[in-house]
Amino acid sequence: MRATYIYGAGDIRVIDAPDPVLQQPGDAIVRVVRACVCGSDLHPYHSRPTSTVGSSIGHEFIGVVEEAGDEVSTLSRGDFVIAPFAVSCGRCEFCRAGLQTSCANGGFWNDAGLGTTGGQAEAVRVPFADGTLVKVPGVDAGTDVALLASLLTLSDVYGTGWHAAVLGGVTEGSTVAVIGDGAVGLMAVLSAKQLGAERIVLMGRHRARTDLGREFGATDVVAARGDEGIATVLDLTAGGSPIVLEAVGHLPAYHQAVGIVRPGGVISRVGAPQYEDAPVGFGSLFRHNITLNGGPAPVRAYIEQLLPDVLDGTVDPGKVFDLTVDLDDIPRGYAAMDQRTALKVMVTS
Amino acid sequence: MRATYIYGAGDIRVIDAPDPVLQQPGDAIVRVVRACVCGSDLHPYHSRPTSTVGSSIGHEFIGVVEEAGDEVSTLSRGDFVIAPFAVSCGRCEFCRAGLQTSCANGGFWNDAGLGTTGGQAEAVRVPFADGTLVKVPGVDAGTDVALLASLLTLSDVYGTGWHAAVLGGVTEGSTVAVIGDGAVGLMAVLSAKQLGAERIVLMGRHRARTDLGREFGATDVVAARGDEGIATVLDLTAGGSPIVLEAVGHLPAYHQAVGIVRPGGVISRVGAPQYEDAPVGFGSLFRHNITLNGGPAPVRAYIEQLLPDVLDGTVDPGKVFDLTVDLDDIPRGYAAMDQRTALKVMVTS
Repeated sequence: MRATYIYGAGDIRVIDAPDPVLQQPGDAIVRVVRACVCGSDLHPYHSRPTSTVGSSIGHEFIGVVEEAGDEVSTLSRGDFVIAPFAVSCGRCEFCRAGLQTSCANGGFWNDAGLGTTGGQAEAVRVPFADGTLVKVPGVDAGTDVALLASLLTLSDVYGTGWHAAVLGGVTEGSTVAVIGDGAVGLMAVLSAKQLGAERIVLMGRHRARTDLGREFGATDVVAARGDEGIATVLDLTAGGSPIVLEAVGHLPAYHQAVGIVRPGGVISRVGAPQYEDAPVGFGSLFRHNITLNGGPAPVRAYIEQLLPDVLDGTVDPGKVFDLTVDLDDIPRGYAAMDQRTALKVMVTS
Repeated sequence: MRATYIYGAGDIRVIDAPDPVLQQPGDAIVRVVRACVCGSDLHPYHSRPTSTVGSSIGHEFIGVVEEAGDEVSTLSRGDFVIAPFAVSCGRCEFCRAGLQTSCANGGFWNDAGLGTTGGQAEAVRVPFADGTLVKVPGVDAGTDVALLASLLTLSDVYGTGWHAAVLGGVTEGSTVAVIGDGAVGLMAVLSAKQLGAERIVLMGRHRARTDLGREFGATDVVAARGDEGIATVLDLTAGGSPIVLEAVGHLPAYHQAVGIVRPGGVISRVGAPQYEDAPVGFGSLFRHNITLNGGPAPVRAYIEQLLPDVLDGTVDPGKVFDLTVDLDDIPRGYAAMDQRTALKVMVTS
């Protein structure tokens, strides 16, 4: 089958890879219908050391079950499924608690230890298929084409934005600041709106993206960054936002979050941090009892809850995709994401 | 009046200071009945630069109202009061939300800007007396001597330990790890026990203190530190404690907290951080959705709730005081705290 591999910074290739096969009785093989390129795929795209063997890449996909192992009980051939960006057994303490990204037995895609490959391919072997995949009855991959983009967001960015909003404690009437106008930031805006936020300040400087943010529910857009951005948000919120959703992952975004959070407030991070140390002492978090939370979103825990509004068209998160490429053309998709000419790229197989 | 001043590292003196007088109609003058030395007083005791004028010190006291300004409505001469370690107006957004340590108008003791002096003195001017002080009816400072120690803990350490436990989300059946066997750590143990914790692992290496910790409710004591301490707690808790209360404030204690927290868990800090930067990225907090919270405890918000069990003897937090000195003898109290020959020092006036 064709599959996307990365051979070093900027070096994305579609290669001939072995067809995936069942290895464990709990596995399923999923034929990929749509995949996408994630903002976090850009990190290896920028920094992966050159390798002659390469590694598979991609962690967001939807598809159709082609084959299911003997112990798979909830899925059969032909079922339409959403694959979260993490593999989870569904049975351990953490899966039962809705923290599937800390599953004691699972892990992530493209993990040699777990023997997983990537979603930017024609097919994928899914370990712990019952625990990992979410079946969506009634979807026909051939005819429900318009719906596919929104269903695909449930594999990562929508659930990740939702996680941010949930951990931020967004509720009816909340004031929320969202840092970052990438797909996750926009999904955080949409999620905050769905959870009842009254005021949603979106910090971002790409007009097309912040316009989409307004469509999703942002009430204010702040293009300024750094001290000027902080001052603007402090002014707009009369002293800081009680809830800050950080959807970038770079250190300046963290500083921004600390700068705009209100005493007693929450900074909920879902942008994978590209830093390890950051200020948490008296001058940043401690003095005013700021809560810092967040992490890899257990999107598996949220899909069933978010699905109805997607299926009936109440929300249209799929609007974050502004470029679609064939699998063979995926290097162009990476380049477009990297150059920020595309917000998020969908991949057809 | 006599008052305690610090003139530099290790240089604590009792001097003649001006008697406090009412300055604002909302002020009260409180005659101090008992004060104490806080672990956090040891920070200036270690590092305060030498000064010829010195500064007042002390932020925990109980006493009797001697005089109240015209606008003070809840207190009159003769009332017995507990003074929290923060001054709070009682009316602003943050006071109303129970975050009095972020009061928009108040602040702390010994703050030149606010014009406050310290509690280790014969008397103190209390701004925003209605908002700051908590009246305890029925206490006679002359005859209820046995009760005074426990009432005094409500000015800081008990409320601070309680804050840690509340922010940690301790509830019936919880497993909790407490880092630090100082007075705040022991109060965190007591608070966790009161909130229903079933398993309370106390990390500390001072036998007399950890024994008191057991009396307050600790089920396990871990004397080891560093990697060995982490391994021991991970073993005891089969993979980490979902709730970690950090009551020290030094960076190694933070590392310890990160090392023993369970995926999805909470690190609640109440030891004032003696560091600004610390690990918060993928390798520490983010990977497993760890929540970091805590800050200066709004003890004002907790006193009324904690008082009944103190008054009826259900709890005896005053046991943390293992040395009592006269005000004139307070330099000896500082030295004993510093040399760890005393856990916590009470000061009689």
